[in-house]
Amino acid sequence: MPDSSTTILIGKKPVMNYVLACLTMIQNGANEVVLKARGRAISKAVDTAEITRKKFATDIVVKKIKIDTEQIKSSETGNLSNVSSIEIYLGKAA
Amino acid sequence: MPDSSTTILIGKKPVMNYVLACLTMIQNGANEVVLKARGRAISKAVDTAEITRKKFATDIVVKKIKIDTEQIKSSETGNLSNVSSIEIYLGKAA
Repeated sequence: MPDSSTTILIGKKPVMNYVLACLTMIQNGANEVVLKARGRAISKAVDTAEITRKKFATDIVVKKIKIDTEQIKSSETGNLSNVSSIEIYLGKAA
Repeated sequence: MPDSSTTILIGKKPVMNYVLACLTMIQNGANEVVLKARGRAISKAVDTAEITRKKFATDIVVKKIKIDTEQIKSSETGNLSNVSSIEIYLGKAA
Protein backbone atom coordinates (compact mmCIF):
# COMPACT_ATOMS: atom_id res chain seq x y z
CA MET A 1 0.00 0.00 0.00
CA PRO A 2 2.18 2.86 -1.21
CA ASP A 3 1.44 6.53 -0.39
CA SER A 4 -0.85 5.47 2.37
CA SER A 5 -1.39 6.93 5.78
CA THR A 6 -2.40 4.69 8.63
CA THR A 7 -3.53 5.53 12.12
CA ILE A 8 -2.70 3.63 15.29
CA LEU A 9 -4.93 4.38 18.25
CA ILE A 10 -2.88 4.18 21.44
CA GLY A 11 -4.78 2.66 24.35
CA LYS A 12 -4.06 0.42 27.30
CA LYS A 13 -1.82 -2.22 25.77
CA PRO A 14 1.93 -2.32 26.53
CA VAL A 15 3.93 0.26 24.59
CA MET A 16 5.90 -2.39 22.64
CA ASN A 17 2.64 -3.61 21.04
CA TYR A 18 2.22 -0.18 19.45
CA VAL A 19 5.88 0.07 18.46
CA LEU A 20 5.53 -3.29 16.70
CA ALA A 21 2.30 -2.22 14.96
CA CYS A 22 4.06 0.93 13.80
CA LEU A 23 7.11 -0.95 12.47
CA THR A 24 4.87 -3.45 10.68
CA MET A 25 3.00 -0.68 8.89
CA ILE A 26 6.24 0.98 7.80
CA GLN A 27 7.56 -2.40 6.65
CA ASN A 28 4.39 -2.89 4.61
CA GLY A 29 5.02 0.35 2.76
CA ALA A 30 3.08 2.98 4.70
CA ASN A 31 4.65 6.40 4.08
CA GLU A 32 3.05 7.93 7.10
CA VAL A 33 1.92 6.50 10.41
CA VAL A 34 -0.26 8.58 12.71
CA LEU A 35 -0.20 7.78 16.43
CA LYS A 36 -3.36 9.02 18.08
CA ALA A 37 -4.05 9.05 21.82
CA ARG A 38 -6.34 10.64 24.35
CA GLY A 39 -5.98 11.55 28.01
CA ARG A 40 -3.41 9.59 29.96
CA ALA A 41 -2.44 7.51 26.91
CA ILE A 42 -0.79 10.65 25.47
CA SER A 43 2.51 9.88 27.23
CA LYS A 44 2.41 6.38 25.77
CA ALA A 45 1.99 7.80 22.26
CA VAL A 46 5.13 9.89 22.78
CA ASP A 47 6.95 6.80 24.14
CA THR A 48 5.86 4.81 21.06
CA ALA A 49 7.16 7.49 18.69
CA GLU A 50 10.46 7.84 20.55
CA ILE A 51 11.15 4.10 20.83
CA THR A 52 10.22 3.52 17.18
CA ARG A 53 12.51 6.20 15.78
CA LYS A 54 15.42 5.92 18.22
CA LYS A 55 15.71 2.16 18.66
CA PHE A 56 14.26 0.51 15.58
CA ALA A 57 13.75 2.76 12.58
CA THR A 58 16.30 5.56 12.58
CA ASP A 59 15.15 6.71 9.13
CA ILE A 60 11.79 7.65 10.64
CA VAL A 61 11.23 11.22 11.78
CA VAL A 62 8.45 13.11 13.52
CA LYS A 63 6.79 15.13 10.75
CA LYS A 64 4.17 16.96 12.74
CA ILE A 65 2.47 16.92 16.12
CA LYS A 66 -1.04 18.20 16.72
CA ILE A 67 -2.87 18.55 20.02
CA ASP A 68 -6.58 19.08 20.43
CA THR A 69 -9.51 18.72 22.83
CA GLU A 70 -12.25 16.14 22.34
CA GLN A 71 -15.59 15.85 24.05
CA ILE A 72 -16.18 12.42 25.51
CA LYS A 73 -19.54 11.26 26.78
CA SER A 74 -19.26 9.19 29.94
CA SER A 75 -20.93 5.81 29.45
CA GLU A 76 -21.98 5.77 33.11
CA THR A 77 -23.34 9.24 33.77
CA GLY A 78 -23.88 10.51 30.22
CA ASN A 79 -21.98 13.70 31.10
CA LEU A 80 -19.76 15.34 28.52
CA SER A 81 -16.18 15.94 29.53
CA ASN A 82 -13.20 17.45 27.75
CA VAL A 83 -10.23 15.21 27.07
CA SER A 84 -6.97 16.29 25.47
CA SER A 85 -5.72 14.36 22.47
CA ILE A 86 -2.51 14.14 20.48
CA GLU A 87 -1.65 13.10 16.94
CA ILE A 88 1.96 12.30 16.12
CA TYR A 89 2.77 11.99 12.40
CA LEU A 90 5.72 9.73 11.69
CA GLY A 91 7.25 9.46 8.25
CA LYS A 92 10.45 8.64 6.42
CA ALA A 93 13.15 11.31 6.45
CA ALA A 94 13.22 13.14 3.12
CA MET B 1 9.87 41.49 30.17
CA PRO B 2 9.15 41.89 26.44
CA ASP B 3 10.42 39.39 23.84
CA SER B 4 11.08 36.87 26.52
CA SER B 5 10.60 33.14 26.53
CA THR B 6 9.80 31.38 29.76
CA THR B 7 9.64 27.72 30.59
CA ILE B 8 7.17 26.02 32.91
CA LEU B 9 8.18 22.57 34.08
CA ILE B 10 5.07 20.43 34.45
CA GLY B 11 5.19 18.09 37.42
CA LYS B 12 2.84 16.68 40.03
CA LYS B 13 0.76 19.73 40.93
CA PRO B 14 -2.85 20.09 39.80
CA VAL B 15 -3.20 21.16 36.16
CA MET B 16 -4.84 24.50 37.07
CA ASN B 17 -1.67 25.57 38.88
CA TYR B 18 0.21 25.34 35.59
CA VAL B 19 -2.57 27.05 33.63
CA LEU B 20 -2.43 29.93 36.11
CA ALA B 21 1.37 30.13 35.90
CA CYS B 22 1.07 30.20 32.12
CA LEU B 23 -1.57 32.96 32.11
CA THR B 24 0.47 35.02 34.60
CA MET B 25 3.53 34.87 32.38
CA ILE B 26 1.53 35.94 29.33
CA GLN B 27 -0.06 38.75 31.37
CA ASN B 28 3.41 39.89 32.38
CA GLY B 29 4.42 40.25 28.74
CA ALA B 30 6.04 36.93 27.85
CA ASN B 31 5.80 36.40 24.08
CA GLU B 32 6.40 32.70 24.34
CA VAL B 33 5.75 30.19 27.07
CA VAL B 34 7.30 26.73 26.86
CA LEU B 35 5.58 23.89 28.71
CA LYS B 36 8.04 21.11 29.41
CA ALA B 37 7.19 17.69 30.82
CA ARG B 38 8.66 14.23 31.16
CA GLY B 39 7.11 10.78 31.40
CA ARG B 40 3.58 10.59 32.68
CA ALA B 41 3.38 14.37 33.14
CA ILE B 42 3.29 14.68 29.34
CA SER B 43 -0.51 14.34 29.26
CA LYS B 44 -0.75 17.10 31.86
CA ALA B 45 1.36 19.41 29.69
CA VAL B 46 -1.09 18.85 26.81
CA ASP B 47 -4.01 19.49 29.19
CA THR B 48 -2.36 22.73 30.36
CA ALA B 49 -1.90 23.95 26.79
CA GLU B 50 -5.45 23.04 25.79
CA ILE B 51 -7.12 24.60 28.83
CA THR B 52 -5.02 27.77 28.54
CA ARG B 53 -5.80 28.39 24.89
CA LYS B 54 -9.40 27.15 24.76
CA LYS B 55 -10.81 28.48 28.03
CA PHE B 56 -8.73 31.48 29.04
CA ALA B 57 -6.53 32.98 26.35
CA THR B 58 -8.06 32.42 22.94
CA ASP B 59 -5.38 34.61 21.29
CA ILE B 60 -2.77 32.02 22.28
CA VAL B 61 -1.81 29.34 19.78
CA VAL B 62 0.46 26.31 19.79
CA LYS B 63 3.51 27.41 17.80
CA LYS B 64 5.54 24.23 17.91
CA ILE B 65 5.70 20.88 19.68
CA LYS B 66 8.90 18.90 20.14
CA ILE B 67 9.31 15.44 21.60
CA ASP B 68 12.57 13.89 22.73
CA THR B 69 14.11 11.22 24.93
CA GLU B 70 16.06 12.06 28.08
CA GLN B 71 18.27 9.83 30.17
CA ILE B 72 17.36 9.92 33.83
CA LYS B 73 19.55 8.45 36.56
CA SER B 74 17.54 6.69 39.23
CA SER B 75 18.34 8.14 42.66
CA GLU B 76 17.83 4.72 44.25
CA THR B 77 19.68 2.29 42.01
CA GLY B 78 21.85 4.66 39.98
CA ASN B 79 20.61 3.03 36.77
CA LEU B 80 20.08 5.11 33.65
CA SER B 81 16.67 4.92 32.07
CA ASN B 82 15.12 6.57 29.03
CA VAL B 83 12.19 8.89 29.58
CA SER B 84 10.19 10.64 26.87
CA SER B 85 9.77 14.39 27.11
CA ILE B 86 7.67 17.03 25.40
CA GLU B 87 8.03 20.77 24.85
CA ILE B 88 4.95 22.75 23.86
CA TYR B 89 5.62 26.29 22.64
CA LEU B 90 2.70 28.65 23.19
CA GLY B 91 2.63 32.16 21.75
CA LYS B 92 0.32 34.90 20.62
CA ALA B 93 -1.39 34.41 17.26
CA ALA B 94 0.32 36.52 14.60
